[in-house]
Amino acid sequence: MQNDTILLAQLNPIVGDIQYNLAKALEYLEQAQKKGIKLVVYPELFLLGYPPMDIVERYPLIAEENLKALEEFAAKCKNTSALIGFCEFNKQNRGKKYFNSVAYINNTKIEKIIRKSLLPTYSEFSESRYFEAAPFLSKDRIINFGNYRAGIIICEENWNDDSFFEKPLYSFDPLKTLAEEQKPDFIINLSASPARAKKEQLLNNLLSHCAKKYSIPILYVNQTGSTDCITFCGTSRVYNEKGEIIARAKSYEEDFFEVTPYKSEINRIEPLPKGIEKTLNSQKEFSLDYEPDLERTYLTVTNSIKDYFRKNGFKRAVLGLSGGLDSSCCAVLLADALGADNVIGVSMPSKITSSQSKNDARELADNLGISFFEIPIKDMTDASSATFNKVFEDIQTVWGDFRYKAPLTFDNIQARSRAMILWGISNEFSSTIPVATSDKSELYMGYATINGDMSGGFAPICDITKTKLFALARWMNNNRQVKNAIPEAILLKPPGAELAINPKTGKPLLAEEALMPYEFLDEIIWRLENLQQSAAKMLEEKFLYEKKHTVTKEQKKLWLEKFAQRVQFAQFKWSIMPPGPIVDSRSVTRAEYVQPITSKLKF
Amino acid sequence: MQNDTILLAQLNPIVGDIQYNLAKALEYLEQAQKKGIKLVVYPELFLLGYPPMDIVERYPLIAEENLKALEEFAAKCKNTSALIGFCEFNKQNRGKKYFNSVAYINNTKIEKIIRKSLLPTYSEFSESRYFEAAPFLSKDRIINFGNYRAGIIICEENWNDDSFFEKPLYSFDPLKTLAEEQKPDFIINLSASPARAKKEQLLNNLLSHCAKKYSIPILYVNQTGSTDCITFCGTSRVYNEKGEIIARAKSYEEDFFEVTPYKSEINRIEPLPKGIEKTLNSQKEFSLDYEPDLERTYLTVTNSIKDYFRKNGFKRAVLGLSGGLDSSCCAVLLADALGADNVIGVSMPSKITSSQSKNDARELADNLGISFFEIPIKDMTDASSATFNKVFEDIQTVWGDFRYKAPLTFDNIQARSRAMILWGISNEFSSTIPVATSDKSELYMGYATINGDMSGGFAPICDITKTKLFALARWMNNNRQVKNAIPEAILLKPPGAELAINPKTGKPLLAEEALMPYEFLDEIIWRLENLQQSAAKMLEEKFLYEKKHTVTKEQKKLWLEKFAQRVQFAQFKWSIMPPGPIVDSRSVTRAEYVQPITSKLKF
Repeated sequence: MQNDTILLAQLNPIVGDIQYNLAKALEYLEQAQKKGIKLVVYPELFLLGYPPMDIVERYPLIAEENLKALEEFAAKCKNTSALIGFCEFNKQNRGKKYFNSVAYINNTKIEKIIRKSLLPTYSEFSESRYFEAAPFLSKDRIINFGNYRAGIIICEENWNDDSFFEKPLYSFDPLKTLAEEQKPDFIINLSASPARAKKEQLLNNLLSHCAKKYSIPILYVNQTGSTDCITFCGTSRVYNEKGEIIARAKSYEEDFFEVTPYKSEINRIEPLPKGIEKTLNSQKEFSLDYEPDLERTYLTVTNSIKDYFRKNGFKRAVLGLSGGLDSSCCAVLLADALGADNVIGVSMPSKITSSQSKNDARELADNLGISFFEIPIKDMTDASSATFNKVFEDIQTVWGDFRYKAPLTFDNIQARSRAMILWGISNEFSSTIPVATSDKSELYMGYATINGDMSGGFAPICDITKTKLFALARWMNNNRQVKNAIPEAILLKPPGAELAINPKTGKPLLAEEALMPYEFLDEIIWRLENLQQSAAKMLEEKFLYEKKHTVTKEQKKLWLEKFAQRVQFAQFKWSIMPPGPIVDSRSVTRAEYVQPITSKLKF
Repeated sequence: MQNDTILLAQLNPIVGDIQYNLAKALEYLEQAQKKGIKLVVYPELFLLGYPPMDIVERYPLIAEENLKALEEFAAKCKNTSALIGFCEFNKQNRGKKYFNSVAYINNTKIEKIIRKSLLPTYSEFSESRYFEAAPFLSKDRIINFGNYRAGIIICEENWNDDSFFEKPLYSFDPLKTLAEEQKPDFIINLSASPARAKKEQLLNNLLSHCAKKYSIPILYVNQTGSTDCITFCGTSRVYNEKGEIIARAKSYEEDFFEVTPYKSEINRIEPLPKGIEKTLNSQKEFSLDYEPDLERTYLTVTNSIKDYFRKNGFKRAVLGLSGGLDSSCCAVLLADALGADNVIGVSMPSKITSSQSKNDARELADNLGISFFEIPIKDMTDASSATFNKVFEDIQTVWGDFRYKAPLTFDNIQARSRAMILWGISNEFSSTIPVATSDKSELYMGYATINGDMSGGFAPICDITKTKLFALARWMNNNRQVKNAIPEAILLKPPGAELAINPKTGKPLLAEEALMPYEFLDEIIWRLENLQQSAAKMLEEKFLYEKKHTVTKEQKKLWLEKFAQRVQFAQFKWSIMPPGPIVDSRSVTRAEYVQPITSKLKF
């Protein structure tokens, strides 16, 4: 008896690596053919890889190669049909160079080409840079599958429903037009839709809403894997005509998944990352209850590290272990993503480093099974200081008026000496990169040293705020196979860079002394990113921190002003930050936030 | 008698600094009113500043403030009308958050709002990210000026002529529609159009073509000044109905410029940067004759440095002087942009540095009148090497198999020690930043050290190839007030990083030995950027270098392969490069080239 299921090919491509993507496509096709599956559906732009960004503009040969791959692929489609995303040259005499297209291949022939009509250009998307938006004709969107008629849409074409979104971005709704004009038996949506906080909830609610609204099942195929800052979690699925989920693929891995969207029967339903279901409604207030998003965060970051290393030919990571929260969390995430053998932690104490910190770092490394070395930086910082003192005296003869009274120079010598050691290791051992350990709260404050702790080949926690990172650390301690890898002492210690002594306390300066309470800071960030609130508005509203502590209006104003001032200066630092995974609903990563450094910000 | 000229207000805004921009607008308005001028025309989006990029999305308060500024400005427009660019909220229930708009203010009333219909989204432009493209209605584009009817267009709306461009980007041509449907007496184009190689020629030919085609004079108002990588050169102008230029404002500075586009009489015509006129036709082949573009290049870079420092509150620059071409050119450009008093050159010799290099560096500094200090880095590199040797022995116990046989570690210790000194100076003295001295040829090759010579707050020559830089150095020696600032020895010396000894020669390794001849390399870059040629095509074609030297096919293939391999790896470095001025027709600056690091390139 013939198999009349559809194969949802949830795969992980490499941008621009056409031969790799083609081989992956063929591998699933062959398996499908063996099983007699009639139709295989791949993600959007699969043969090229998503997001291609400017490489198609600069290297048109890659687009030509993807066309050849399409032909080669089509020739193999005997008995099994396929829908596959590819990059098509726009041969019209106007418009951008390419279309974001889908080929429908039937019996080795490219029977239909479907061109994307809505091109997302915001946040991490930049499709209008190189693609031409195609006119939408609903009749061109129908393919026959046995006795059924399937309507084809591409990603963003599903995201413009005016009964779901308060202010849709585009002037027409392709899904509505297709559903109403053609009344297909089911919809197939080929997507490349990145994961981030609240995205699963949004996606689920939207697709369910649309399926129900038009009484049409929707089959949604997403890619998996990461490219720089962007992670695709897969989690392809099918909703029936009542808007109920009847099939869901694995999250954060490739999945060979047979579905029957034209029948209202339940296929396999894989679980989502734990906790996500709890937050199906949108979050209206800042909360320290990060639990519902922690497994997803962990999976996003570890998969992102894995793919950044694998796809770029890196194998090993080296990082400084200070005995603090940031580097400890990075070490756990790296060990889990790359394997403990491929991670080296280096403790690089200076005269300010406490013996407690050194011991905590060593204990963490032991718990993780990563290699650990202790390299005091005293000789390096002494030599630098001696050299610098001479420079500064000389320079003072000409720029004396401009010398700071309390410069951060020595603090930074320490951070930069450490980075120099880590980059030295990466120069000495093959396929090895250092990792930048800055977290999101500190990046907002510009509380990171250029060529120091914010330097590295990848920045695993650059989109995780400090309060969330504490929660993630505890979550990892509870949920990893080896429990409590991060020593309790690290979790109890107030964060501090251990680069300077606080003259008031005589002890190493704590970050909250230099900045403001992290709970308060993280709420500013949350309000700015999620509500785009002004400082004036924030001054009026009650922060979670204020419910627990007395904060005078003057103090609150000072913190808000400090934030405004520091975030202005931080633009400069963000521009030279290495890539790191987008986790939150908005990030300051290079993939999605493009600001002129030369600008005056105001909030 | 009343003055019936139009004031073309060629001004330099700061992105997001609404009060600054408003004050500038009012200053010109008041002067215009004193002179009885009837109409003042400001550049596109002037009140907000161009390019705003994502700041309007993240900080809507800035957009609100620009609306208030518009009202305040309008209230002052007594007797003098104005056309001024601003950011308008899109209050419709669909579409992006803002319009890129122009207000026509007549007798203190905002009489008309004109919304941009074509939004450039490519290269350094990203308008579709935050602006909604407005429908174009020609009747809404007419304002009355005395007895004349003027037709208003905004920047890109002038750039879609299908008799000029082989493949226009958009499906309709606003200028054509306006000219044909309304037959205005003249056109006013409010622009923010960045300068780059060949842009003046393109702009001139296009505007002249359009004025002649429709027999309508065109008044073109452009902004001046720089924002990060992007420089606007001003050079506003008027073409008469025959396409002849009858007025041209200054280049690279603000200009208060009265014009009479409705009369076919010649107003003031300021000269263009020298040489540009010679290259009105497009360049079809790679050439070492950079002369026609050198003054423009010099002006772009110096103005870019000036504005980056001034607008960001920096005053002083510090750079390493190696006695080589790159740092020497940077020193001249910085001295000219910031004043010699505000620049410090530091010679930081290592054991590989020749005494000739040290002397050349000192002579250069003396010629420029900048401060000069010599700081040997031996103590720092010795301390680092000693520390590293211990680290590496330790690490070898676990990663021994992966240790490189000929690592670049020590080379990079030198470069990083130097950067550490420069950043130290910037930490110790206020408003001071170090400068990254990498040039475009070396950036393409990834021939620059992370946290070393490619580290800094700004990268002045990141878009100038090595052969062009030699030409620029000679041009500066001939054309600056103080002649021959760069010692001849520096110009005659073959480039080299002086970081390593070539075992074959026993002398410091030269860059061309490590890479390939710069003339050949620069032609690969030129062909890739301007013609998007593949390596296969380049292999067939004859390079300029091959006309002078015998190059075997095998050798050429090796160089092309080396280029391909190195450019792939360089993506990683480009992503953490500081901003620097776009000069060439295409650049690898962060402002215009967005590529995934995780990608496979092919050319």
